[in-house]
Amino acid sequence: MFKQLGLVGCGLMGGSLALALKHAGLVQHVVGYSQSPSSSAKALTLGAIDEQVFSLADVALGSDLIVIAVPVAATQATLNGLVDQLDASALIIDVGSTKSDVVEAAAKALHHRLQQFVPCHPIAGAEKSGVEHASATLYQGCQVILTPTSLTPPHATDTLTHMWTQLGCKVVVMGAAAHDAAFAKVSHLPHLLAFAYINSVLQNENAEQVLDLAGTGFKDFSRIAGSEPHMWRDVLLANSEEVLISLAHFEQQIALMRSLIQNHDSTQLLQQIKTASERRSKWTITKA
Amino acid sequence: MFKQLGLVGCGLMGGSLALALKHAGLVQHVVGYSQSPSSSAKALTLGAIDEQVFSLADVALGSDLIVIAVPVAATQATLNGLVDQLDASALIIDVGSTKSDVVEAAAKALHHRLQQFVPCHPIAGAEKSGVEHASATLYQGCQVILTPTSLTPPHATDTLTHMWTQLGCKVVVMGAAAHDAAFAKVSHLPHLLAFAYINSVLQNENAEQVLDLAGTGFKDFSRIAGSEPHMWRDVLLANSEEVLISLAHFEQQIALMRSLIQNHDSTQLLQQIKTASERRSKWTITKA
Repeated sequence: MFKQLGLVGCGLMGGSLALALKHAGLVQHVVGYSQSPSSSAKALTLGAIDEQVFSLADVALGSDLIVIAVPVAATQATLNGLVDQLDASALIIDVGSTKSDVVEAAAKALHHRLQQFVPCHPIAGAEKSGVEHASATLYQGCQVILTPTSLTPPHATDTLTHMWTQLGCKVVVMGAAAHDAAFAKVSHLPHLLAFAYINSVLQNENAEQVLDLAGTGFKDFSRIAGSEPHMWRDVLLANSEEVLISLAHFEQQIALMRSLIQNHDSTQLLQQIKTASERRSKWTITKA
Repeated sequence: MFKQLGLVGCGLMGGSLALALKHAGLVQHVVGYSQSPSSSAKALTLGAIDEQVFSLADVALGSDLIVIAVPVAATQATLNGLVDQLDASALIIDVGSTKSDVVEAAAKALHHRLQQFVPCHPIAGAEKSGVEHASATLYQGCQVILTPTSLTPPHATDTLTHMWTQLGCKVVVMGAAAHDAAFAKVSHLPHLLAFAYINSVLQNENAEQVLDLAGTGFKDFSRIAGSEPHMWRDVLLANSEEVLISLAHFEQQIALMRSLIQNHDSTQLLQQIKTASERRSKWTITKA
């Protein structure tokens, strides 16, 4: 399907995608670049890439698919480094958790070549980082959101839909703004709440004893508070507008719950909890 | 160890404890009562109890250990029904998630017999309810908090510490007030936040499409929002003072995060996330 994959960022996300594409026979050759050459060297040793290159220009040269798997804040600088050597028929994708900022960065860096860029967001867990945790099956069964721009030609979206589907993913196509609004609600806000929650527990003098008492509810609720800090700083800032809107909606519900508890309004409190519990109980993760 | 266990409430918690005590050879005979006789009938069929009784007086008669496994709000009424037939050497325990309110209820119902009551809180997951999900291993490896009152004789605490230890539990002894303050932080507040969070997502017109996009972060963070509503209504009201204090501390952290995001204070935002992420990453559940 592709002759050469040019991978920028040989970490968990990029390394896993390279492995998956190779295992599926969708790429013939993978060249890999990392800002820190020790990462791309490790990716070479692990077989995620076939060739280590040391400049963005060398990633672009001869590649018909380019995967940008770097922190979203580095998207524009990455594309700036690729654009001059970019083949006119090459497709570029990213794997970032926010999309409006990535489209904006791509427009600034790529100009008329923006049509070659198809923003992607594979919904894959990534608590561990580093190519040493990369796996050809990381994306299997996941959803992938494609947010083509108004310039993206349908064949580009089709090609990438086909590619992700071959990797065992369910592809959803939507606009970047709708993507960012939805993920503020189901992903970015929960992370923000989990970080704030842990820090609120840590404010207590006896925080360590208290944490020793915590059980499985705490474990699951706070798991995402252990996520990679730089990535989440970037996500919360990149999608700050939607995150703050979702936070305001959450705070309305908190204010309601607080007043029901203060007023010992047993009936209404039960009703609120029932609504949440019933909806959550019937929720299941969407799989490919 | 005990001749007869009198079980009040033949649900998941009570049924599992009866099964565990029988499997460990710590009780010879189990009589079981449920407000709804169909539950105790089911417990009899499943072998969790040996004999079904139809009044609280019959639970007390001849029992040297009584386990109260009913919603915490029903504690006082339950003890009122037991007290007249209570053997002077019998021990009574509960398995509720809050303790100050339970001690208060016990004092009102038991008077001078309060010394026979040892409040217990086994930290065992209970998303599913009903004796059909009961298991002899539910409590294995769990922590159990004992909150003896000033009247509890040391031998009673010792006997129950031994009993729970025999079931594979780690026993922690602390005061009821300290228990409630700690569990407000590590359990009750997370539940409150999870309920409010789900309800805030449901406020959106396109809530269903948004929920379809959610991944593993959402799954774990919101799992406890699916908990049993009556139980959690009772817990949040029973421990309202500590829950509201913990909520206020959480809201301070939320206000801080909001201002850092609004001001695009990348450095301080990263610092806050790092603090949470580092502490959460090294946390592990305490096991027996």
